[in-house]
Amino acid sequence: MSKLFVIGSGPGDAELLTPKALKAIQASTDLVAYGLYLDLLGTMCAGKHHHELPLGEETGRARLALDLAASGKTTALISSGDIGIYAMATLVFELLDQQLLGKENHPEWLNVEIEVIPGISAMQAGASRVGALLGHDFCTISLSDLLTPWDTIMNRIHHAGAGDFVVSFYNPVSKKRDWQLNTARDILLQYRPAQTPVLIGRQLTRPDESINIVTLEKLDARDVDMFTLVSVGNSESRHIVNGSKEWVYTPRGYKKRWVRDTEMQQVQA
Amino acid sequence: MSKLFVIGSGPGDAELLTPKALKAIQASTDLVAYGLYLDLLGTMCAGKHHHELPLGEETGRARLALDLAASGKTTALISSGDIGIYAMATLVFELLDQQLLGKENHPEWLNVEIEVIPGISAMQAGASRVGALLGHDFCTISLSDLLTPWDTIMNRIHHAGAGDFVVSFYNPVSKKRDWQLNTARDILLQYRPAQTPVLIGRQLTRPDESINIVTLEKLDARDVDMFTLVSVGNSESRHIVNGSKEWVYTPRGYKKRWVRDTEMQQVQA
Repeated sequence: MSKLFVIGSGPGDAELLTPKALKAIQASTDLVAYGLYLDLLGTMCAGKHHHELPLGEETGRARLALDLAASGKTTALISSGDIGIYAMATLVFELLDQQLLGKENHPEWLNVEIEVIPGISAMQAGASRVGALLGHDFCTISLSDLLTPWDTIMNRIHHAGAGDFVVSFYNPVSKKRDWQLNTARDILLQYRPAQTPVLIGRQLTRPDESINIVTLEKLDARDVDMFTLVSVGNSESRHIVNGSKEWVYTPRGYKKRWVRDTEMQQVQA
Repeated sequence: MSKLFVIGSGPGDAELLTPKALKAIQASTDLVAYGLYLDLLGTMCAGKHHHELPLGEETGRARLALDLAASGKTTALISSGDIGIYAMATLVFELLDQQLLGKENHPEWLNVEIEVIPGISAMQAGASRVGALLGHDFCTISLSDLLTPWDTIMNRIHHAGAGDFVVSFYNPVSKKRDWQLNTARDILLQYRPAQTPVLIGRQLTRPDESINIVTLEKLDARDVDMFTLVSVGNSESRHIVNGSKEWVYTPRGYKKRWVRDTEMQQVQA
């Protein structure tokens, strides 16, 4: 049987890797991943054939994983976080789709049994480290304009603002790309208070983790790199301080509702 | 020391519970949860004091967890999925906030050390079971109008549609509430094709799991209950069939981009 596991290994802390993911790695002979992810997994990957392709060769990595699995090797394609969220799972199915459309010449891919195993994504690691930032409706937006036109991304940021979603920015900056995050901040400032709490979480759950809570108006791309998640609260998110401990949470409901109820009671009284 | 673990136990499959969550449960003497969640965890919860409050008593559950921890008992407050996503974590911090504002009279809560442990949420379990539905920008919307006015929810659905986000609906229906999902469908149909693939995932990763892929125009609240996740693809999401296996994925980028590039090449040629 020809098997490909498509595995999200979580944010970094080995204790946030699910047993299902671990068993799939153990069952595989061949691991395909960006090198850093395999380093994070450490001894779990010992004794396996490692196929490390650099950043930027995502399609090559998905193709190699399908090829290895099709050749009979039980293979694990691994991304950190959730491999289904801005990661490699989609590329596997894009290739499969191309094959089904007759635009690839790899009929052997169609015989591969594929199993996708989700993982804890950065936004979840970040929200949990500061409390409950994702406590109500939220969205994610990638600021990478490599495959999506910037107009489309800007349109999304406007709708995220107008819809008052908590917003997590993935790929907030890159080596070649640094201005989008400040533009995104300026768009959101049109819709929510300057004091809205923002989480800047770097290397979340890893040994060199850093967590900063700033206000939306103070969000600055210079404080953010490729290893950083930026999550912006909605208009009701609260930053609270209990001694040396800070938390950010987003309430379940809307104060407006209670205001309205109180007003109605006053009207009825 | 006074310790409260706030734990997401994942969608149901014990293999999707993280080791971090398991260790926290093992370290606790008292477990606070809706009974069904403890049933799902099975023998992991043996030998602990169970505090099962029914659905609807969410604030009472958070309050009890804080009280137990403050009294010196290492306590675990547990929700299925990610406890930070439409679940109990936010209530703990709402209560803490109220205490800090002087609106509660439980100063002992402020001495509780709180640790939030994220879990795999239903949207991730669902996306992974059908491929890579969350492969690009997405949002979540709760259709419960218990604490959020329906106008606010409708506004969000419009913006989710106009922003072309993949949309996961949490709390899509309840015993008393059945019409919102069809209204939500009709709103999204204003923005994306009738053929847009939709995942209807019930009891995801549990023994009685069922998974149906329908088109947006065929989405019907009668096929959905309280144990169901509904995720609607964006305008580019693809439903592909490989023999007996069906997949849904959302591409990383936008065809429009390529169309535009091709057009530009034609213009330049």
